Amino acid sequence: MPNDHFLEDLAPGRRWTTRSIEIAAEDIKAFAALYDRQPFHLDEEAAKSTFFRGLAASGWHVASLTMRLLTQDGVPFAWGLVGAGGEISWPQPTRAGDVLTVFSEVVEVTPSRSRPDRGIVTLRNETRNQRGEVVQILVAKAVVPSRAATAVAG
Amino acid sequence: MPNDHFLEDLAPGRRWTTRSIEIAAEDIKAFAALYDRQPFHLDEEAAKSTFFRGLAASGWHVASLTMRLLTQDGVPFAWGLVGAGGEISWPQPTRAGDVLTVFSEVVEVTPSRSRPDRGIVTLRNETRNQRGEVVQILVAKAVVPSRAATAVAG
Repeated sequence: MPNDHFLEDLAPGRRWTTRSIEIAAEDIKAFAALYDRQPFHLDEEAAKSTFFRGLAASGWHVASLTMRLLTQDGVPFAWGLVGAGGEISWPQPTRAGDVLTVFSEVVEVTPSRSRPDRGIVTLRNETRNQRGEVVQILVAKAVVPSRAATAVAG
Repeated sequence: MPNDHFLEDLAPGRRWTTRSIEIAAEDIKAFAALYDRQPFHLDEEAAKSTFFRGLAASGWHVASLTMRLLTQDGVPFAWGLVGAGGEISWPQPTRAGDVLTVFSEVVEVTPSRSRPDRGIVTLRNETRNQRGEVVQILVAKAVVPSRAATAVAG
């Protein structure tokens, strides 16, 4: 998807797909060592007797990799991918060796009533593994400028 | 808050506070270089002309640091902090030099109808900076075992 889209250029149903990234066991452990020091993210052996029954990536690692995939080939919106927030869930664990790809779709475009220079684009981002299983669903609200914003900022 | 709480030990209104962590400009840029390569997260000068009007941390960095604070002194639940998902928002940007602390509160405890060994605890986690401003709200659903689970796993 090309960069520099304004609110007027986007409509529900618009889709794009990122490239893919493989997540290695060392990546899972390195992220966890910094941000999520729980046994199921740090050590294969210790992970066996946990809820996950084996090493699994931190959900925040999956979220961060999803953001990497969404941003690395350029962001579709004129101000970048500025998230106001969203809903996130992890229906399946992500395991070492998984290859992740993000499938995004615009579900709603809402111009701001109070600020004509912007609006909110609701994006549903499914992160899937190499078997097509959804490992994360992120329904994100992004702040996107309208063409009126260029006139002001111009 | 002590570790190894089961579902029966938790009730709405239960609160705890983490220790604090400072986020440096280098941390913001290093995280962004890996996961969120947008100018407002990578470079002070380039950030000035963006939506954020200066360097700001990636929201996923704030989420990851929040998880670090939540887990680093031990996790309150018997299976660890296993997130099924949640709602996240970033009402304010996080800037270099900010000192973050997480304030958590149990808002709901829901035993599973189909699986008596577990339930869902809804936790509201406010990440605040040194001025008390809320920079992230994460309402997370965590999977927590009931005492029946120990009997089974025991």
